[in-house]
Amino acid sequence: MIVEMRTGASKEEVDDVVRKARSFDLGVQLNIGTDKTVVAILGSNTGQIPTDLFAVLPGVESVTRIMKPYKLASREFQRRDTVVDCAGVKIGGERIVVMAGPCAVESESQLMQAAEGVKKAGAAILRGGAFKPRTSPFSFQGLQKKGLELLAATKERFAMPVVTEVVNPQDIKLVSTYADMLQIGSRNMQNFALLTGAGKSGRPVVLKRGFSCTITEWLTAADYLLAEGENKVILCERGIRTFEDSIRFSLDISAVPVIKKNSHLPVIVDPSHAAGHYSLVPAIAKAAVAAGADGLLIEVHPNPKEALVDGLQSLSLSDFSRLMDELRMIAKAVGRYI
Amino acid sequence: MIVEMRTGASKEEVDDVVRKARSFDLGVQLNIGTDKTVVAILGSNTGQIPTDLFAVLPGVESVTRIMKPYKLASREFQRRDTVVDCAGVKIGGERIVVMAGPCAVESESQLMQAAEGVKKAGAAILRGGAFKPRTSPFSFQGLQKKGLELLAATKERFAMPVVTEVVNPQDIKLVSTYADMLQIGSRNMQNFALLTGAGKSGRPVVLKRGFSCTITEWLTAADYLLAEGENKVILCERGIRTFEDSIRFSLDISAVPVIKKNSHLPVIVDPSHAAGHYSLVPAIAKAAVAAGADGLLIEVHPNPKEALVDGLQSLSLSDFSRLMDELRMIAKAVGRYI
Amino acid sequence: MIVEMRTGASKEEVDDVVRKARSFDLGVQLNIGTDKTVVAILGSNTGQIPTDLFAVLPGVESVTRIMKPYKLASREFQRRDTVVDCAGVKIGGERIVVMAGPCAVESESQLMQAAEGVKKAGAAILRGGAFKPRTSPFSFQGLQKKGLELLAATKERFAMPVVTEVVNPQDIKLVSTYADMLQIGSRNMQNFALLTGAGKSGRPVVLKRGFSCTITEWLTAADYLLAEGENKVILCERGIRTFEDSIRFSLDISAVPVIKKNSHLPVIVDPSHAAGHYSLVPAIAKAAVAAGADGLLIEVHPNPKEALVDGLQSLSLSDFSRLMDELRMIAKAVGRYI
Amino acid sequence: MIVEMRTGASKEEVDDVVRKARSFDLGVQLNIGTDKTVVAILGSNTGQIPTDLFAVLPGVESVTRIMKPYKLASREFQRRDTVVDCAGVKIGGERIVVMAGPCAVESESQLMQAAEGVKKAGAAILRGGAFKPRTSPFSFQGLQKKGLELLAATKERFAMPVVTEVVNPQDIKLVSTYADMLQIGSRNMQNFALLTGAGKSGRPVVLKRGFSCTITEWLTAADYLLAEGENKVILCERGIRTFEDSIRFSLDISAVPVIKKNSHLPVIVDPSHAAGHYSLVPAIAKAAVAAGADGLLIEVHPNPKEALVDGLQSLSLSDFSRLMDELRMIAKAVGRYI
Repeated sequence: MIVEMRTGASKEEVDDVVRKARSFDLGVQLNIGTDKTVVAILGSNTGQIPTDLFAVLPGVESVTRIMKPYKLASREFQRRDTVVDCAGVKIGGERIVVMAGPCAVESESQLMQAAEGVKKAGAAILRGGAFKPRTSPFSFQGLQKKGLELLAATKERFAMPVVTEVVNPQDIKLVSTYADMLQIGSRNMQNFALLTGAGKSGRPVVLKRGFSCTITEWLTAADYLLAEGENKVILCERGIRTFEDSIRFSLDISAVPVIKKNSHLPVIVDPSHAAGHYSLVPAIAKAAVAAGADGLLIEVHPNPKEALVDGLQSLSLSDFSRLMDELRMIAKAVGRYI
Repeated sequence: MIVEMRTGASKEEVDDVVRKARSFDLGVQLNIGTDKTVVAILGSNTGQIPTDLFAVLPGVESVTRIMKPYKLASREFQRRDTVVDCAGVKIGGERIVVMAGPCAVESESQLMQAAEGVKKAGAAILRGGAFKPRTSPFSFQGLQKKGLELLAATKERFAMPVVTEVVNPQDIKLVSTYADMLQIGSRNMQNFALLTGAGKSGRPVVLKRGFSCTITEWLTAADYLLAEGENKVILCERGIRTFEDSIRFSLDISAVPVIKKNSHLPVIVDPSHAAGHYSLVPAIAKAAVAAGADGLLIEVHPNPKEALVDGLQSLSLSDFSRLMDELRMIAKAVGRYI
Repeated sequence: MIVEMRTGASKEEVDDVVRKARSFDLGVQLNIGTDKTVVAILGSNTGQIPTDLFAVLPGVESVTRIMKPYKLASREFQRRDTVVDCAGVKIGGERIVVMAGPCAVESESQLMQAAEGVKKAGAAILRGGAFKPRTSPFSFQGLQKKGLELLAATKERFAMPVVTEVVNPQDIKLVSTYADMLQIGSRNMQNFALLTGAGKSGRPVVLKRGFSCTITEWLTAADYLLAEGENKVILCERGIRTFEDSIRFSLDISAVPVIKKNSHLPVIVDPSHAAGHYSLVPAIAKAAVAAGADGLLIEVHPNPKEALVDGLQSLSLSDFSRLMDELRMIAKAVGRYI
Repeated sequence: MIVEMRTGASKEEVDDVVRKARSFDLGVQLNIGTDKTVVAILGSNTGQIPTDLFAVLPGVESVTRIMKPYKLASREFQRRDTVVDCAGVKIGGERIVVMAGPCAVESESQLMQAAEGVKKAGAAILRGGAFKPRTSPFSFQGLQKKGLELLAATKERFAMPVVTEVVNPQDIKLVSTYADMLQIGSRNMQNFALLTGAGKSGRPVVLKRGFSCTITEWLTAADYLLAEGENKVILCERGIRTFEDSIRFSLDISAVPVIKKNSHLPVIVDPSHAAGHYSLVPAIAKAAVAAGADGLLIEVHPNPKEALVDGLQSLSLSDFSRLMDELRMIAKAVGRYI
């Protein structure tokens, strides 16, 4: 941590900073410049100490963190890449794992058709929402328990692991009974009660990035999951909010190499929620694979025109199948396979 | 809802749109332009119908919502201003209600000192956090139940209503036992399980704006609270995330007049979280009162230098007292009082 | 400048950083921590040295600037507040200076009516655009030279100084002949050829903030003007681009206290371009005065319904007159006058 | 254009809207809903008519544009893809055109080495800056005329077309004498004097996206170039400003498919300015090709450690050569070549 003193700060003010640092058992080195005094505060856990402790002292101009605030998710904590096992499917290895299915589970026939189609096209994991977090209380909220049962039945029939979203800490146990992997949505990335509960479930967890959170905050949220003792977290980039209005969210493609640099966790991309429109999904999905993503989470519906939720961003089964062929070519070009 | 067809869309495609609209019992009017056909879909509940239902149909270029997605929070639903009663203190009337106190409850003496000081300076409601949502799992998470007990004791001693944050649906009952008003934080604005629970509690609720949510989404989230039957919601603007890096969040001062135009709910401003630095709090607080805010939520600590959380953005008791004098002048200039 | 080395950086890599710093005649101090080595680079002109010079060296993790990149505009360069004189009107002193008038000069009668009305209501300076930077080449581009002549005539008749925008370096001489003060628009904040030309003109300059520029970039752009030798720059906050879509731009009210802290230059606020709608202008204007702004730039049109440009954000003369009365009350509450 | 009237708007207010529309020779259709009256205003040039003309009328709630504000750049104006010829190199066809070279021309040997290296690796066009727009007046501003001469000499020696930036309308003639293609930088995207001048030059123009401009504004700015009569514009996505702080700008990968959908112009990607760090350039470059970009603009320096400008984001010649091999694989996977 670097504490920059104001021009003209007194010796007493500098001493105060030094004293406070020592009271936390931190090392201190002073740099007395011509214009400014700079105090370097050293120690391996300074990333977890609030900068405010020093910033609030008289004579301090600014405090800059050198150590990152996250720890367990960092590449420095674990050098080698984490590979997460979801009911036998490995995420984070050479294979690019495609998770596909409808936004919301609507009925048995819809889910079965979707599962059959995406499996045939090469998807490794089935996705489908039973609990839907909706911005308006008057919108369809998902089939809930009934949806979970349909997911479990489909999973059995097509021998595909299932991932589904959980939105309330009270439902974690129930959802874990039916699903192989939990998903935490963008709006819940900093719902710390939910993170702690999901971390305790023992299930692998897909943690979507908050649509307005920095990568640093995202990795710090992953620490909540990892702190419960299991190294089974998959990060999912799904677009961030910007001023651009031609799409729903701007997919932050740089998040893929930045995560690979700073963290050992696998990272996948959800092109559907970012695009908001099926016609933009293929280009973003291909870009994600080329940039090094470990997987994709794609919305596919047997009949998008009749979808209850997010029909516009869903691919039809034939569009999905065509996209998978294109993705296989890109995967090969970057030395991987689907 | 306005459905714009693509240039050259066929008659069948237009008919499909019309048919779908009629299947929802909606009125339809066609505008056949020289370049484009435009279908106007009419009805009082089109605000709650997803635009995707039409956007997904072949030949459709775009769908624009005319009715807003929120309903109960809208000025059109209720013309007159809502005044919320918090244990006798009226929020949304002529008086500008100042809620002040420490970010986190740390100890009995800290809370008592804070309460005594802010009451003397003119604050109407005491704030203090017992459950602290922290971005890192390794940070201080609040005194929890012990903090609630301290709040209740302080409230009794100084006869001030108390507002405190709730972060987990399971804690709502407990928190409601001790506090007069619940606060839902920025990161939980779209935690719909928490909103529904808080709405059922019967307590007035301060709903902070998600730091990256639009005003429309904020009012739609308020619908979750209002849908439980009580008209006791106070909106709190606390800064939005932008590219600007000299402050923590950019306070969206325009939110005050926009809310007043579009909603009947009272709106207050939290200058402390936006500023992130005590020296910027007074200017923002004064601006909020001048812009028409119904109240302020300000962090005050008897000894900011020793605060466990957010010390840098807390005012000392003497700074707070001086600010209250300045705010009284501005309140008078806009025809109100504190 | 603080250079943080990577964990495990070699002694040679650290030496390279030190050598490069010394080659620029900069002081160096080493902090050898348990995990990381940190090199502090000292000297009064490190704010103007690119961080890349060090960031590009092997073994370097990150480089953090301690000195700000701007110099002449900084509070450290000049402690006392600058007061700019615009043809006798002092900007940056006790008086809050209101500049008002139409967005675009349209005709003699329009301009004369506007000038008469705003002067009567208490405006100190007349604004009006002759060269209009428009996003589409097919929109009205202003009356240009004819507009400047009308401004000069109006100025003479009503004895009010005039401010107008300049958009092309080639026009600076012409515009300076007619106007008392030049305005550089948001889209030209980093048009460095225009800044240099305007700095050489000898006229005071209103520098609007780029709608997506940080305050640091804004003050650095001001350095371009100040580098030409005259201390006659007025900063104008006019709203920044965010995700919020209920208004045109989000006025960054915190810019006012941040500028006051970091710079000696006067700062004014343009509520009209931020709001985009006349009904939101008064609340923002009042907030600006309460926050400490030195002036306002407000669009006023004798007949907004017939305006060729930006009619929706223009106040009528009677609305402006009413607002001025309200602003006088706020100005008094903060110890100033209009 | 869709004009939505306020609930309860009077017949006179509706008539006013209709009258105004007819005065511009526009067609009108009325939709009298149960809650709201909606007026559809029809005509092929409504995209160029300001919405304010109607929004300002009494009783109007909002005005929504259906036609886009740009015209010449739109896919509707020209169905087939534009292919731009830059001294024999075709941009927008099957070949993906890589433009590479140093950020700033620094010396003859630097430029010659760079040109030789990038040509050998497969780049089609040489880039290099002679006029550098710098945020601080105290930074290196480029070699200017001397830089142009070096570019011309290098171009001759290696038989590669040259692209370079122009920053001042007065320099367009000079720059056009030396360079095959002009570049307009992000900060000048809405410098309309510069756009008009560049449009008149007869040279092809690379128009970088303003780092905080929407795609719609970008295409509208392209209309300024196209309005001068030549269809020689190449759009360049180079990252947008967001709240994310781990990279310099967030590359908007979705801009590629959105441009392809809405415009006939070729689109290229600059991964270097977005990333700000050489280690992130390859992933973004590969993503761009996979997403369908027609070319890349990449910074390459023979010795990044000694670069005067932007060394951190420059690839070395060997890194560039390796990247080109990877890009060839991706290009092939999407049915193109480099």
